[in-house]
Parts: sequence; C-alpha cells; structure tokens
Amino acid sequence: MKIAADQSTVDTLFILECLPLVCEQFLSKLKGFQKLTFTYEALKTWFDALQLQRCRDQTILLTDAYNRVLAEDVVAGEDLPRFDKSAVDGYAVRAEDTIGASQTKPLLFRFAEGAELADTAHREAKQIWTGQPLPKGANAVVMLENTKKLDSKLEVWIQAAPYDNVSRKGEDIKKGETAALAGTRLKPYHLALFEALGNNEVKVVEKPKIAVLSTGNELAEVGKERDEKQIWESNRVLIAGMCCELDADPLDLGLAKDNVDEIAEAIQLGLKIADAVITTGGTSVGGLDLLPEAVNKIGKPGIIVHGIAIRPAMPTALAMLEGKPVMVLSGNPVAAITGFEIFGRPLISKLLGLKKTEERSKVKAKMARKITTALGRKNFVRVRVIQKNDEFQAEPVSAKGSGTLTTMTKANGYIIVPENREGLAEGEAVTVHMFGEVETVKPNV
Amino acid sequence: MKIAADQSTVDTLFILECLPLVCEQFLSKLKGFQKLTFTYEALKTWFDALQLQRCRDQTILLTDAYNRVLAEDVVAGEDLPRFDKSAVDGYAVRAEDTIGASQTKPLLFRFAEGAELADTAHREAKQIWTGQPLPKGANAVVMLENTKKLDSKLEVWIQAAPYDNVSRKGEDIKKGETAALAGTRLKPYHLALFEALGNNEVKVVEKPKIAVLSTGNELAEVGKERDEKQIWESNRVLIAGMCCELDADPLDLGLAKDNVDEIAEAIQLGLKIADAVITTGGTSVGGLDLLPEAVNKIGKPGIIVHGIAIRPAMPTALAMLEGKPVMVLSGNPVAAITGFEIFGRPLISKLLGLKKTEERSKVKAKMARKITTALGRKNFVRVRVIQKNDEFQAEPVSAKGSGTLTTMTKANGYIIVPENREGLAEGEAVTVHMFGEVETVKPNV
Repeated sequence: MKIAADQSTVDTLFILECLPLVCEQFLSKLKGFQKLTFTYEALKTWFDALQLQRCRDQTILLTDAYNRVLAEDVVAGEDLPRFDKSAVDGYAVRAEDTIGASQTKPLLFRFAEGAELADTAHREAKQIWTGQPLPKGANAVVMLENTKKLDSKLEVWIQAAPYDNVSRKGEDIKKGETAALAGTRLKPYHLALFEALGNNEVKVVEKPKIAVLSTGNELAEVGKERDEKQIWESNRVLIAGMCCELDADPLDLGLAKDNVDEIAEAIQLGLKIADAVITTGGTSVGGLDLLPEAVNKIGKPGIIVHGIAIRPAMPTALAMLEGKPVMVLSGNPVAAITGFEIFGRPLISKLLGLKKTEERSKVKAKMARKITTALGRKNFVRVRVIQKNDEFQAEPVSAKGSGTLTTMTKANGYIIVPENREGLAEGEAVTVHMFGEVETVKPNV
Repeated sequence: MKIAADQSTVDTLFILECLPLVCEQFLSKLKGFQKLTFTYEALKTWFDALQLQRCRDQTILLTDAYNRVLAEDVVAGEDLPRFDKSAVDGYAVRAEDTIGASQTKPLLFRFAEGAELADTAHREAKQIWTGQPLPKGANAVVMLENTKKLDSKLEVWIQAAPYDNVSRKGEDIKKGETAALAGTRLKPYHLALFEALGNNEVKVVEKPKIAVLSTGNELAEVGKERDEKQIWESNRVLIAGMCCELDADPLDLGLAKDNVDEIAEAIQLGLKIADAVITTGGTSVGGLDLLPEAVNKIGKPGIIVHGIAIRPAMPTALAMLEGKPVMVLSGNPVAAITGFEIFGRPLISKLLGLKKTEERSKVKAKMARKITTALGRKNFVRVRVIQKNDEFQAEPVSAKGSGTLTTMTKANGYIIVPENREGLAEGEAVTVHMFGEVETVKPNV
C-alpha cells in the first residue's frame, strides 16, 4: 500500500495497516540503541506519564493580549450592537413609507421634528449618521446618495426593505453567547470583539517558562575564549527562538561541560524556575553522552523514552522529573529542531492550554525531484517550496548531515516522510509544514 | 474571460486585459465618492509620493532578535564547521585502510598512540566523539557500532568511503559567503547560524512605530462612562494587534471626538512620535466625516487618494503629512481590517525593510458554495477553510455588514475576489489568505 506523505492522515493509517510490516526488521541499525520507539508511541508514553496541566492564569490588559491564549471562555455581557443602529449616513425612515420610490418617481418626506418618527401616515425622515441608534418609529435607513434635500422636504429615490442599512441589535453577538472559547490563541479580531463587549482585560494562560541548557565540552560561548578544538555554542538561541515562536518564555541555563554533576545541577535549577527543561547534546550512546545518566541521577522516573524512530533526532530522550517534562535533544542543530517540532510543539501547546497541538501552516506541493529516505523511521526532509504559475513545487534542500544550519535557512518548510516509505517519487504530492514564505517565481508576461 | 480569484496573478492580468471593460460603468454607486481608485493604483500613487525609507538600524543581542528584520547582510567570518569534524561517535581511520572490511571479514586496526594517525601501512584507528576534529592522517570515521574493541586491537566491520561520517570544513557555510541578506525576517535558524559563526549581536531594523487614533462621537472608552447612544471603542486594540502581528510597535493616540481641531491635534502628535499614523472612523463623505478635512488642515499634500474600489473599505483614504504616511481607515472594524490588509501590510513591510510585502500563508481551496460580489471592486470575503479528507473547502462566513467582528473570529482566512467578477461559483478554486489554522474534519475510521 502506498500512503501519501501527509502527516495528518498517515499516523492513523499507519497504525492500522502497516505497523506489523515495518517493525523490528527495519529497526536494525540503531546506532547503539536497543530499540527505537515510534514518534506517536513515544509522545503518548511521555504524556501519559506527565499528565500535563496547562500553566497558571493571569489577567492582563487587552492591549497586551495579542497572540496570548485565552484561559477561560469569554461570554458576551451584552448584545452587540446593543441597539439597532445605522450602518450608513442617510435618513431613518419607515420602510413601508418608501414603497414605490425610484429615481424617476421620488417620494417626498418631511423631516421629523422630535426624537422619533411620527406614525406611517406622515411619511417622516430623520437624518442619521453611521453608528447612531435608529430613532423610534424607524425601521430602515436610506443612504444619503439616494436622497435629495429640498428646502423643507426630502426626496427619497429608492424603495427600502425593512432593516435595510441597519445593524440589528445583537446581530454580531447576543448577550450570553460565547465570544471565544478557552484555549483560543487571540487574534486582533478577538481583542476587538472583547473590547466592543466592554472588556479591557482578559484572563490568559501564563507563558510557559522553558529552561534551556546546552551541553558539550566541544562548545564555547561566543564572546569567551575557545580552544582550537571548540566551536561556538548556538543551540540555546535556536531553542529559545523556537520557544518564542510558540509564545513561550525561554530561560537560559547556560552551557554545561560533559560532566554528570554539572549537568544534573543545571537541570535541577531548571526544574525550580521553569515549567519544563530542554537540553541539547550528550544524548546518544557514546562515551560522552551523559544526559541520560544525569537525568536519572536526579530522580524518578527520569528517562521515559530514549531512541526515537525519526531521522534526524534519533537520540532524543523524553523524561520526567519532579512531575515536570524534561526534553533531551540532540546537539546536532537540525536533529534538535526535529525533536522540538515532534515533541516540543505538542508539549508547549499543552502547557498553553491550546485545544490541540498548534501546527505550522501547511501547503500541498509536488516533489520537484525524487528523494530516498530511511525505512522504519519518520524522515524529516527540508524543502524549499516554490510557486510556479499555479503549482507549488517542493525542492529538497540537499544536506549531508543533520548539523548544517544553512539547510534550514535555505528551506522554507519540511516534509515528514512516514516510516513505511523508502523515499518519495518526483511529482509525488506531499504536505509541507511551512516555516517560511512560499517563494514565488513570477511568470514572464 | 474568466480569471481565478488568485491575488498573485490577477493584478497583472487585470491591468492588461480587463481594465477597459470594467471601468466607469461599474463605478456608479459610489456612496458619494466621485470616483473609486483601484487598489494597486492607490497603493502606487501613495508609495510614489511617500518614497519610504526603512526605519533606523539598531544592534541587539541575538537572544532578542527572533522575528526581527535584518538591517544588513550577515557574512560568514569563518568556515562553518571550522575544521573537519566527526559527525558520530566512533573511530577515525584512513578510508583506504578499511577496504574489504565487513561483518563477516572484519579488519584489525591498532590504536593510534599520538594525536595523529600513522601512515596508511600501519592501519591505525583513533577513538573520536561527535563534534571532535578529525585527527591528522584520518579521512573517515567508522561508527562505534560497526566496530568491536578487543584488548589491544579494534575490529572494523565496515568499509568506509573517504569522509564518511565527517562534517567537512566549511560544508555548512564558507568564510565570506552570505549567511542571510538584509531584509530577512529572522527565524530561530538564522539566529543559530549567526551565533555558530561567532556573533552574539545582530543589526536589525527598528520596529516601526505606528500611532493609532480612533475617532467618533458614538464611541466611549471601556472603563469610562458611556451614554445610551454610545458603543465601546474597539478599533485601537484591533489596529494595534494587527501592527503587533507584523512586529511593529503600536502607540496609542487615544479616542478623538468628531471635531476637526481635536483630530488634527492628535494626528500631529502621532507624526511627532511615530513613523506612521493610522486613524479609524470619520472617513466617508457624510456630515461627521471630518478626517479628510482634519488631515488636509495639517499640511500638504494631505489626502492623496480617497475612495478605493474595494468592499468593504471603500472610504479608506491614504495621505502624507511631513513626509510620513497617514492611513485613514473606516470605523467599521471589518472595513478597517480590509484597509489594513491592503495598504497597512505593504506599508509596514516597507518600513521594516522587507524585500517584499509580507504575505499571509495561503492555501488553495474550493468554494463550498456560491457567493455574489460587487463588480468593479475588489471584494474581501471572509471564509472558514475546512480540510475534508484531502481537500480544502472554503465556506463563506455570511455577514450582513462590515461591522460584525464575529465574522472575523469565526473565519480563518479571506479571499480577494477581483474587480471583474460578480461572484464565485460553488466548487471554484480560490486562494485563501489564512489568518487562522485550517480546521480539520477527522475522517471516521
């Protein structure tokens, strides 16, 4: 069976039909892992252990609430609009009085003298501006340009139906209706709606605090000394940026050496100050891969899953300490990004109280060329999506290893190739998770 | 000729082929405007007058630079990686020494004693961890799991090609190459790349300051008194939120009454403190529509375009004062949103120094049902995009007027129907500009 590389449907299909076929036989070259865990299984195991609650509430001004997540339903405290109001500048009338009016056969109206219109026999009109309440007696508004003001009379050139050019009381939202549900990521339109209903504050979910630690003897901090075997540390700014992308608050735990005690101490600090800890580096099964040991030294249950069937990001480990999530990512930046996408997004979405994992925008595209991928694992493939005429093409960004950051800065999205595929064919339809804008090739005209 | 409602191609086609057909005959019911200007013409006229420069530069820490816009090209100051390094944990070898090795016929290597490998006759291996520089003499790394350590020898089970498991010096980026161009919106990956190259600061474009003014006697500020004819003001938080969406800095000019002097004074303050001024309300051609007068009172050239062939947002006016842009939007929230989308996005993109107007993510969808729109104008149609199986359907969100905010909170995107169409057919392919996530209807399995 052939399955399109569409993440939204593949998991279900995969579990149902393909799992027994793939399993152990393909999970052989595991770089020292006894077993690789499928991503959905890893996530489920981790989340089952964590039983995450969303972060605390806080009440903030609407002016600060753009992009925050609503902590409780907002219910309309009044009708919006709270009265029938004119949607245009013109004259409030009784619709019945206008029957038969046209540009060639205008009807004459007299101007109402009081605050309300006299009954229908008198054919009265009252000037009204956009947004003003309809005067009592009126049930329609004739636009200014469909009238002509004479000395003491008004010519009406058009026949109005009841409630023409009127915004009805409660037509936007009625008192008691829900304006937005808890778990909604607030757009400018939500803010305006809440304010129009008389709120200038809103209860949102606090931004999850994510403590970020980098580890590795081979790393030096920019601005400090480095020896000839060291490279500049760059994973903290990467992970912090990915937290910001989801509107979480990154906290910096610094850079730890490959030393179990030093790493454990930093993670413990992270557990004190943050809602979750993310580390990079030292998570494979080599001699300097001390993260699992450091995590397990702190307490139970420690590491819950280690070794994931995804490339890159295989050495990712998922842990729990003091009831809090600890995500142990690879030191390779693209592997760290992949791990964050697969596990960090659902984690932060849960901490934010979002109804489901916040996904990147997706486009459907066709593979510009064939690629090969590893069977038995999800494969995270960076692509550049280009719009040519009416078609989106996904051009794979070639990369040797998982360490090349420029493959991310050159790409604008990624594909997840499922575990039961050895690659994708040229022209095959794929769903691309976009992190940049689609590039447009303008047609020659 | 039938043109798909695809904004990316329609403007060009429209100018070339359709303009003469549409023109004056359809621009009749103008709500008091003498003439409506097409959107692209309005934008061009405004920008030609403005000759916008991007905002000032500022140097900030990389840790603060997520989503900011790069002010100058970043050039790699060194090779990345700066040396050939191991991509795995294993043993550094000469590839030539491994010829013929296999799991059934392993080759025996001795351990190198010094910092470098002896020449090829000696078949030496040296243990190496991920990220460490390749020792002199080695040109490949054999992964740990493809070896077996005996007492004083190493069994190698695999034949390595030159530079297997090696990240080559400069393979990510070479010294002198451009890491990112001025005008790039910085993703986490850019930050990591710059840091990996030894930078911890970056020169970005200052966030444009946008002064936001609301006007109208019918409005009252939430938290203050309102009389029975007033509604709560909600456009400032709306426009401010839309500025934040583009990472501009909104500044609050408050709420002005329908009074030419009061409005002019507020705009003048805005011109002092901000890079652009956006107002809402009072921009039609009715009796209380004082914005054009107030703007023109301040100075030349004042209003440049007033009355745009788009629905809603027809009464939008574009102005210039003291060389700065002034955007005069409708007081109707959806009309204000439309005006902001059409003119505010390009404006802020220019002020940010982006290479082109930053667009919303777009999806291709099929109209779930027929809609009718006004000929001779662009029509901004709110839709809810739903994914059913593999297809995106765009369900129009029905709305009476342009004042209903809930049409925006219920929608997740909008379509722009071009000037030469009277509507869209059911099933017609459209491009939707997304401001929310596509809703997924899970298939029953």
